[in-house]
Amino acid sequence: MIIVMGKEVTEAEIGAVVRKLEAAGLQANISRGIERTVIGAIGDERKLDPEMFTPLPGVESAMHIAKQYKIVSRESHPSDTVIDIGGIPLGGKAVQIIAGPCSVETQEQMDLSAQYVSDAGCRLMRGGAFKPRTSPYAFQGKGVEGLDMFDRAARKHNLPIVTELMDVRMLDTFLERGVDVIQIGTRNMQNFDLLKEVGKIDTPVILKRGMSATISEWLMSAEYIAAGGNHNIIFCERGIRTFETAYRNVLDVTAIPVLKKETHLPVIVDPSHAGGKAWMVPALSRAAIAAGADGLLVEMHPNPCEAWCDADQALNPQELKNLMGVLKQIAQALGRDL
Amino acid sequence: MIIVMGKEVTEAEIGAVVRKLEAAGLQANISRGIERTVIGAIGDERKLDPEMFTPLPGVESAMHIAKQYKIVSRESHPSDTVIDIGGIPLGGKAVQIIAGPCSVETQEQMDLSAQYVSDAGCRLMRGGAFKPRTSPYAFQGKGVEGLDMFDRAARKHNLPIVTELMDVRMLDTFLERGVDVIQIGTRNMQNFDLLKEVGKIDTPVILKRGMSATISEWLMSAEYIAAGGNHNIIFCERGIRTFETAYRNVLDVTAIPVLKKETHLPVIVDPSHAGGKAWMVPALSRAAIAAGADGLLVEMHPNPCEAWCDADQALNPQELKNLMGVLKQIAQALGRDL
Amino acid sequence: MIIVMGKEVTEAEIGAVVRKLEAAGLQANISRGIERTVIGAIGDERKLDPEMFTPLPGVESAMHIAKQYKIVSRESHPSDTVIDIGGIPLGGKAVQIIAGPCSVETQEQMDLSAQYVSDAGCRLMRGGAFKPRTSPYAFQGKGVEGLDMFDRAARKHNLPIVTELMDVRMLDTFLERGVDVIQIGTRNMQNFDLLKEVGKIDTPVILKRGMSATISEWLMSAEYIAAGGNHNIIFCERGIRTFETAYRNVLDVTAIPVLKKETHLPVIVDPSHAGGKAWMVPALSRAAIAAGADGLLVEMHPNPCEAWCDADQALNPQELKNLMGVLKQIAQALGRDL
Amino acid sequence: MIIVMGKEVTEAEIGAVVRKLEAAGLQANISRGIERTVIGAIGDERKLDPEMFTPLPGVESAMHIAKQYKIVSRESHPSDTVIDIGGIPLGGKAVQIIAGPCSVETQEQMDLSAQYVSDAGCRLMRGGAFKPRTSPYAFQGKGVEGLDMFDRAARKHNLPIVTELMDVRMLDTFLERGVDVIQIGTRNMQNFDLLKEVGKIDTPVILKRGMSATISEWLMSAEYIAAGGNHNIIFCERGIRTFETAYRNVLDVTAIPVLKKETHLPVIVDPSHAGGKAWMVPALSRAAIAAGADGLLVEMHPNPCEAWCDADQALNPQELKNLMGVLKQIAQALGRDL
Repeated sequence: MIIVMGKEVTEAEIGAVVRKLEAAGLQANISRGIERTVIGAIGDERKLDPEMFTPLPGVESAMHIAKQYKIVSRESHPSDTVIDIGGIPLGGKAVQIIAGPCSVETQEQMDLSAQYVSDAGCRLMRGGAFKPRTSPYAFQGKGVEGLDMFDRAARKHNLPIVTELMDVRMLDTFLERGVDVIQIGTRNMQNFDLLKEVGKIDTPVILKRGMSATISEWLMSAEYIAAGGNHNIIFCERGIRTFETAYRNVLDVTAIPVLKKETHLPVIVDPSHAGGKAWMVPALSRAAIAAGADGLLVEMHPNPCEAWCDADQALNPQELKNLMGVLKQIAQALGRDL
Repeated sequence: MIIVMGKEVTEAEIGAVVRKLEAAGLQANISRGIERTVIGAIGDERKLDPEMFTPLPGVESAMHIAKQYKIVSRESHPSDTVIDIGGIPLGGKAVQIIAGPCSVETQEQMDLSAQYVSDAGCRLMRGGAFKPRTSPYAFQGKGVEGLDMFDRAARKHNLPIVTELMDVRMLDTFLERGVDVIQIGTRNMQNFDLLKEVGKIDTPVILKRGMSATISEWLMSAEYIAAGGNHNIIFCERGIRTFETAYRNVLDVTAIPVLKKETHLPVIVDPSHAGGKAWMVPALSRAAIAAGADGLLVEMHPNPCEAWCDADQALNPQELKNLMGVLKQIAQALGRDL
Repeated sequence: MIIVMGKEVTEAEIGAVVRKLEAAGLQANISRGIERTVIGAIGDERKLDPEMFTPLPGVESAMHIAKQYKIVSRESHPSDTVIDIGGIPLGGKAVQIIAGPCSVETQEQMDLSAQYVSDAGCRLMRGGAFKPRTSPYAFQGKGVEGLDMFDRAARKHNLPIVTELMDVRMLDTFLERGVDVIQIGTRNMQNFDLLKEVGKIDTPVILKRGMSATISEWLMSAEYIAAGGNHNIIFCERGIRTFETAYRNVLDVTAIPVLKKETHLPVIVDPSHAGGKAWMVPALSRAAIAAGADGLLVEMHPNPCEAWCDADQALNPQELKNLMGVLKQIAQALGRDL
Repeated sequence: MIIVMGKEVTEAEIGAVVRKLEAAGLQANISRGIERTVIGAIGDERKLDPEMFTPLPGVESAMHIAKQYKIVSRESHPSDTVIDIGGIPLGGKAVQIIAGPCSVETQEQMDLSAQYVSDAGCRLMRGGAFKPRTSPYAFQGKGVEGLDMFDRAARKHNLPIVTELMDVRMLDTFLERGVDVIQIGTRNMQNFDLLKEVGKIDTPVILKRGMSATISEWLMSAEYIAAGGNHNIIFCERGIRTFETAYRNVLDVTAIPVLKKETHLPVIVDPSHAGGKAWMVPALSRAAIAAGADGLLVEMHPNPCEAWCDADQALNPQELKNLMGVLKQIAQALGRDL
């Protein structure tokens, strides 16, 4: 931690900062410049909070210089983590495309979807049984019944299933139904009680980025899960909120190389929610893989026009197949497989 | 709902839209312009979703024109709602300042705080027993023990208490301990399961705006609570996330007149979290009341430098007292009391 | 400047940074922590740029700790600057409301406007002869002819005039026509050649904040003007661009106390462009004055429905008069006049 | 244009809107719904402005439904435009990488740069002689002397040159010195007088996106140039400003497919300013080409650590060469060349 003190700082004010640092078990290095005096904390600064110092007289600002996340940081674990999902590796040389409908609707729709997902060459399947909807009057998902439909459809093709958990009280049900990957949605990225609960199990967790979460906050949310003991965490970039209104969100491709540098955990991208329109999905998918993402979470529906939810962002089966072809070539240009 | 169709639209494409509207029980008004054809839906458009139409051939865009929120809208309830909190009215002529520490620390700190809050002329008290912290390694609040400390301190001065609920599983405990107002924090504004639960009781709820929630999403979150039966909802603007880094958040004062126009429910402001620094709080508080807010949720600590959390944003007791003086004059300039 | 070096930094890497600092005439203070090594620059850091250090091996980040602006900073000039505009003081105890139409249309419209502005008790008048319009097909302003109309109308009431300069090549014309205050619009806040030119004269300049300019960039743009010799600069907050779509911009009231702390120059607010709707103007105006602004730049039109530009954000004459009344009371609550 | 009127609208209010439409030479289609009445304008709505209607009694909102840009729209010109730059085609099947230093420093630096740019296989060269700097105290570019150095260096390798124009008064000098492509920088995207001037010549113009410009505003700025007669316009996405602080800007890859859909003009990307760090440039470059960009504007310096400006974002010559290799493969995966 660095504490910056103003031009007119007194020795007494410097002394108060030093005493507070020492009381916390650290030491101070004092650098008296012409316009500012800077005090550097020597020791484990994770015990400190800038707010311990900013209200003190003479202090202009205080900031961490070491990262606040630890378990998830690449500094603590230099090599890439590969997560095993029912035998499918995520985070290694192979790029994984997780496809499926936005929401579970009927058994037939799920059976068809699983068939198409498998035919396109994807190895994991997505689908939502519990849906976070802006409006209380909108379709809220099929619930537990939907989990069962999803499970039945996917097992036939040996596709591990990925589905969203919104409510801590449903966690046991998810585990009983054999959910392979639990998705924490964008609106729950800082639902800390939920993060703590999924930290206690070892089922892989896809942690979507909050709509306007910084990279640092996102890493700290992953740290919540990791601190509980579950290190099987996959980051999923899904577009951020900006001033632009021509599309739903702005896919933040810069987050991909930045995360790969900051953490050893896999990073995937959801191109469907990012753009919000099916016609944008191929371009965004290509960009994501080209930027170094370890996979995608992409929406495909047997008949998009009839989807009950987010109809205009789902690919149809043929579009998914075509996309897989071009993504394979881009993956190969980067020395990876798909 | 309005459905806009492109320049080259065919009769068959128009027909498909009309049939979909009619299947949902509405009627279509077709307006053929030179560059676009516009289809207006006649009937209850809340049954419709733009995504029902946007994937159809020839459709360029589809948008709601009626508001999606109903119970919370001023259209459905033209006069201001005044919420009774243990005999204290919120939302009427009187402006209410809810003050207290960021977090409950000790019985002594709470006793002192309650004394100062009461002395300053405030009629409600705030304090956090469960704290949503970005880092899993930071102080997470005193929990249930903190609720008890808070209750003991506030009762002596007849101050109804306001405190944050983060986890659905704690709701019964909150009710047993006599929490007077439940605060839903910014990170949980779209925690829909939590909203549904507080919708089932009748304890007043302060619904903080999500860090980057639009006014419309915020109103829809309130509608979740209202749809469950609890109409005692208070909106709390607490600053939004923008590109600016010189302060923590940007207090969105424009939201105040806009909400007062859109909803009949009270609107308060949290100037402490908005700016993030105690020295900004008086200016932001004055702006909020001048813009028409019904109250404030403001942090005061008996000894800010020693606060365990958000130390640099709490007022000290004397600053709170001074603030109350100037706010009273501003309230009177607007024909209100404090 | 502080240069942060990583965990595995070598003595050679530290040496390279120190040599670069010394070559620029500064000295280094080295603080070796457990996780990071921090090098503080001692001397005038305005000569340095973080980019001189960030590409060097072992460097993690580099940041200024002293402010980059000098002439406009309160550190260099602690007392408030009061700018004299044809005898009217701006920045002192008196709050100044600058009113008038968005654009100059006809002589009659300007004559009426000047009459109403004066009747409402305002002491300065605004009006645009050159209009920055998003579309090349929209009305671009009356040009030089408009300046003359404006001048004729305002002189009758002894109202100094405020008008926007967009093109460096028009500066001489502005000076010949006796423009009293030159407005630099939001789209030109970083038009550095224009800033340099208005820095060479001594006519007061209103510098509007860029749509998404940080406080720091804004202060640096003012420093461009000041560095040329013109210290008669007035900051004008006019709303920033965010994710919110319910209103045009978000009026950033927090900028007011922050600027008042950082600079000795006056700060005013444009509530009309901020909200974009006339009905929001009174609430935003009250908030601005309550937060400590030194004045407003507000749109008033003799007949808003007929305005050629921004019709929905202009107050009518009676609304302006009413607003002046309530603003006077708020100013007095803060110990100021209007 | 669509004009939405409220629930309680009267026939007189509807009549006023209809009369205003008819006065502008358009016709009205009235659709009376249950909750809203919608009036559609039939005719050329480019003559209309929503503000003509929003201040009228009973009107809730008014919005354009046709695009406001015409010459630059794909609707008006369905096939891709290929711009010829001294014999090099931009916008066709071939992807063009425009490389070079941020700023012109010395003749030697430019000679070396041109050599490396050419060696890497790039066909156009970039370099700044006039630099828009946030601080008035920072290096402002070598000016006209720099243009000459740039020209001398590039001609030896037959590289057309791209350089930024900031001041209308320098346009003639740019033309005399044989600048091949004029770049309009992000801070000048809405410097309308500058746009009008470059609209009068036929030199190709690279129009960078403003830091927080919407796609629609950007297209309208291009329309300013096109309306003057110069249709040789190239869009350049360079990152937008958001809440994220871990990198300078967020490269908006979604803008690429969206622009390709809206306009027939070429779209390139500046990955260097977007991320602000050289190590991010390869990932962002790959993403841009994969998303469908027609080229890149990328910074390369013979010795990045010694660059006078933006040192930490320039690639070194070898990094540029390596990048060209992988981009070639990605271009080929999309059926293009490089």
